[in-house]
Amino acid sequence: MSKSKYAIGVDLGGTSVKIGIVSESGKIIKKTSIDTNAQNGPAAVISSIKNGIDQLISKNNIKDFIGIGLGSPGSVIGKKGIVKNPPNFPGWESVPVGKILEKHYGLKCSVENDANAAAIGEMIFGAGKKLESFIMVTLGTGVGGGIIINRKIYRGMLGAAGELGHVSIDYKGVNCKCGSTGCIEAYAGNNYLVEWVAEELRNYPNSYLNLLIKNNDNILTPKLIHEAAEKNDEFSLYVIDKLGNYLGYALASVINMLDIGKVIVGGGVAGFGDRLFNSIESTIKERVLTPLRPRINVAPAKLKNAAGIKGASALAFYKA
Amino acid sequence: MSKSKYAIGVDLGGTSVKIGIVSESGKIIKKTSIDTNAQNGPAAVISSIKNGIDQLISKNNIKDFIGIGLGSPGSVIGKKGIVKNPPNFPGWESVPVGKILEKHYGLKCSVENDANAAAIGEMIFGAGKKLESFIMVTLGTGVGGGIIINRKIYRGMLGAAGELGHVSIDYKGVNCKCGSTGCIEAYAGNNYLVEWVAEELRNYPNSYLNLLIKNNDNILTPKLIHEAAEKNDEFSLYVIDKLGNYLGYALASVINMLDIGKVIVGGGVAGFGDRLFNSIESTIKERVLTPLRPRINVAPAKLKNAAGIKGASALAFYKA
Repeated sequence: MSKSKYAIGVDLGGTSVKIGIVSESGKIIKKTSIDTNAQNGPAAVISSIKNGIDQLISKNNIKDFIGIGLGSPGSVIGKKGIVKNPPNFPGWESVPVGKILEKHYGLKCSVENDANAAAIGEMIFGAGKKLESFIMVTLGTGVGGGIIINRKIYRGMLGAAGELGHVSIDYKGVNCKCGSTGCIEAYAGNNYLVEWVAEELRNYPNSYLNLLIKNNDNILTPKLIHEAAEKNDEFSLYVIDKLGNYLGYALASVINMLDIGKVIVGGGVAGFGDRLFNSIESTIKERVLTPLRPRINVAPAKLKNAAGIKGASALAFYKA
Repeated sequence: MSKSKYAIGVDLGGTSVKIGIVSESGKIIKKTSIDTNAQNGPAAVISSIKNGIDQLISKNNIKDFIGIGLGSPGSVIGKKGIVKNPPNFPGWESVPVGKILEKHYGLKCSVENDANAAAIGEMIFGAGKKLESFIMVTLGTGVGGGIIINRKIYRGMLGAAGELGHVSIDYKGVNCKCGSTGCIEAYAGNNYLVEWVAEELRNYPNSYLNLLIKNNDNILTPKLIHEAAEKNDEFSLYVIDKLGNYLGYALASVINMLDIGKVIVGGGVAGFGDRLFNSIESTIKERVLTPLRPRINVAPAKLKNAAGIKGASALAFYKA
């Protein structure tokens, strides 16, 4: 195996592929972004990835890499690097992206779904560096999860483990697009979040948030909630607390099952900051079994900008 | 290590200690039961265990054992055999039962909490013999759980993992004695079960169950519900379906996290039979993420009579 101190990280997204050369300390040496071309099918996407990598390598002196890491939407089967049914990738059923890149570049290519890549990224470069085991939560359109047990990602039987977003907090709760009810994603996922916030906002006509959205629900975003909260808007602070409660309900169940007390939270909404982390942590502590309480700790993810590239590159540095 | 084909299984309960000599195929050669004497403190309990073992050995020709396995209430720390705070054991904080028995008998003594022992019992002798990974559910006063991943029990950080009973299905649901709300134990644990069944029964004056309990809620038991269900009592069949739904809600969340599709259900209420297993299984299938659905299977535990002794003895045959 190459002893290189650099890896190529590929963050495959529905609209763009972000690619970077990352050092073993997690520093991005150089990065690029290229259209995914998902609408043109798998071959076009593979071309985009190769073009991005080629472009990056050609402009750089580093010629020796420990490997390629790729974080992908959809499910990733086993360790074979097969990506199945990524949402918003038409015509894509099952493609062995890992093998294809491995052959083309003569480099080991490790593929994980993006939630697992985020967890491995935090373990190798971020807030999980010193943790034996932790639960990674990624907040965004969906709520992603990854489980690290004894410094290894836990994949489950089909490589589908860690779907924290589909832990239900209320069996008669709101409908989730997965078909179940009360999934935490249906409370904390960006679109769902905006929905219940808009509804509750009607009872708070004096909220600063109404000013920001000019009384137009349709332009409400997590970012605006954050902005209002920073101005100490009471309603927006209440929203952050409530979001933390919801996440805490789901995590308490997960922690009672797994007996893993450390939680790292990343993704856009994690920008709500300490207020959110404190709400999550105190909700978990109120609800988990007593012996587990003293060890509960909820911390923010450390990889922020280009977390996707860093997480993907971490796959190459990670010894599974 | 001894090459014996026999182990001593100790099933430590609040009122009695059940002890047996068990063969490597899971057959009980000889067994005994002795008062736990829990009210007299840890030393008295240890004496009870030793008396039971001595009594059993002295009446038997088998002199060579692979080891002792002990299933205990409370939490068991690591692999050291320390039993902490078993409920209904006054004066008992932390006792290294494993080490004490190991020293006394010169035999390896493996200790697990009773839910984990049940899971290992099913893996070594029962319905989990051929399964790589599964989730064990034990229905009784509480709802216990054990997680087997790649033929190993998953203990978590403090040895407290697998507390399926405290996965919440409704964050605003009924109060659980653990302090949280909506825990599945607060719907499916024997006492809680009898409570909601009694309440709903008032709307079913013609249920055969009313005859069985002579219109006296206080004598309602899972056994009587079972009896009425066997007579095709509509209400009792509905109760079994509903119990299966509740358990399915909790298990769907757990399966989405763990990606383990096989579930084994044991304990008293599991006597409700196929009707219960089918309800659990169909509820899970309706709620887990689509790719997991084809692999979901809910099966009854195979160890029934003396499951506690067999599960405990399995600890001695199990290579951790």
